[in-house]
Amino acid sequence: MTQMRAAVLQMKVSPDKKRNFQTVKGYLDELMPHCVDLVILPEMFNCPYQTDLFPIYAEEEGGPGWQTLAGLAAEYKLYLVAGSMPEKDDQGRIYNTCFIFDREGKQIGKHRKVHLFNVDIEGGQKFRESDTLTPGKDITVFHTEFGKVGVCICFDIRFPELSRQMVEQGAEIIIIPGAFNMTTGPAHWEILFRVRAVDNQVFMIGAAPARDPEASYTSWGHTIIVGPWGNILRHMDEKEGYIIQEIDMSQVEKVRRELPLHR
Amino acid sequence: MTQMRAAVLQMKVSPDKKRNFQTVKGYLDELMPHCVDLVILPEMFNCPYQTDLFPIYAEEEGGPGWQTLAGLAAEYKLYLVAGSMPEKDDQGRIYNTCFIFDREGKQIGKHRKVHLFNVDIEGGQKFRESDTLTPGKDITVFHTEFGKVGVCICFDIRFPELSRQMVEQGAEIIIIPGAFNMTTGPAHWEILFRVRAVDNQVFMIGAAPARDPEASYTSWGHTIIVGPWGNILRHMDEKEGYIIQEIDMSQVEKVRRELPLHR
Repeated sequence: MTQMRAAVLQMKVSPDKKRNFQTVKGYLDELMPHCVDLVILPEMFNCPYQTDLFPIYAEEEGGPGWQTLAGLAAEYKLYLVAGSMPEKDDQGRIYNTCFIFDREGKQIGKHRKVHLFNVDIEGGQKFRESDTLTPGKDITVFHTEFGKVGVCICFDIRFPELSRQMVEQGAEIIIIPGAFNMTTGPAHWEILFRVRAVDNQVFMIGAAPARDPEASYTSWGHTIIVGPWGNILRHMDEKEGYIIQEIDMSQVEKVRRELPLHR
Repeated sequence: MTQMRAAVLQMKVSPDKKRNFQTVKGYLDELMPHCVDLVILPEMFNCPYQTDLFPIYAEEEGGPGWQTLAGLAAEYKLYLVAGSMPEKDDQGRIYNTCFIFDREGKQIGKHRKVHLFNVDIEGGQKFRESDTLTPGKDITVFHTEFGKVGVCICFDIRFPELSRQMVEQGAEIIIIPGAFNMTTGPAHWEILFRVRAVDNQVFMIGAAPARDPEASYTSWGHTIIVGPWGNILRHMDEKEGYIIQEIDMSQVEKVRRELPLHR
């Protein structure tokens, strides 16, 4: 199996948690005729991107949101890389977590954002995730019949060591739910995805929430899929919607043969 | 001292070795009124970029080419990052080497290209440096009154670990003489410099030979200077010439404070 069909949902996030799950289900219905193998949701798809809301929206692994996602993966028989949502552990700590489900709705991976987003740019964005979140510690790679897939979240992309470790564990696609903003988005979003692809000779997929000018944190959007040569295969602007891309896994081997970086 | 004035010479390389040194001297004369602190030459500035010619053009450290460069640095009282030239050691091994001189003409650094350029792209560039060259092993960082400067050569830029090691040794500017080609140049040159700057929050300078359509290896040119936010400060097209840029070293600290990546 070398051809995987992936869809990325650049959805608009509502403060109404349930409505976000309905939005996901609506898109899955719409995607049905396209026979996609894997669907990717954006970072914090079920919670406004505000540090004070993370503890309020947080649920435990296995909680109602998790069960809805597992059910959707099984119902539509596809891999679901569920963006991220605030996760609460049994000590009350909150994480920015991506749950990953297989076609039977079984959890086959889970990534807790390792590098929290703390930034204070003169005349630009200020944000401190570490006010309410705890960082994760693990590298996340999961198996599919198409090959191995790595997952990390947003600010994690800024640390090339993390992508490199996923690739050393066999990842040929790296998926990154992420909400860059109006300062870091235009400056860094596209080139980071392209150069992580070039350095590691893998597919890179960035899944962003749609822009909501009324939200307190304004997402850059620009969901993107990049090939292992650093070429943009598909990208969006800031508006709500989705993209579907056929991913030819044999491209990874071809690029690695032509430009041997990892011998 | 936080303001350094750097010049990069995008010179055309002649098969006449002596003429290349004359070209360098001509540019240094022209730069005199601009009071530059540091001058950078491109990769293989004194030898056509052909594997079979590297052993023929090669000289030892301290040889006539080296002496000319040391003399020029002292005469014009500037730091000279002398691009690269084929260097022969006492075992007859050939390296792609950058010699670095201070304002008194003393050698204060030397980088032997670590990652040799072997590539075979379908319908694109083929090249095998390892046919005649031996790889270097060392990380290269030198001191100036403005701060520390790292140096590596061309294909070395593709290995993020190498840039990261220079930065861990204190480099706030990374200089990379490099001759990308008509396949890899448009695909990767600019974004690699920009993302190494973004990841490491340092200045990046790429120094390319001017394009010579009659040469067997066609240089992409596009000499570039990037700030620590990944912003392009100055860049060239493919034609012969030079650029001068005031480098404000305090920008490194500012970007690192605003977006703390390396705590």
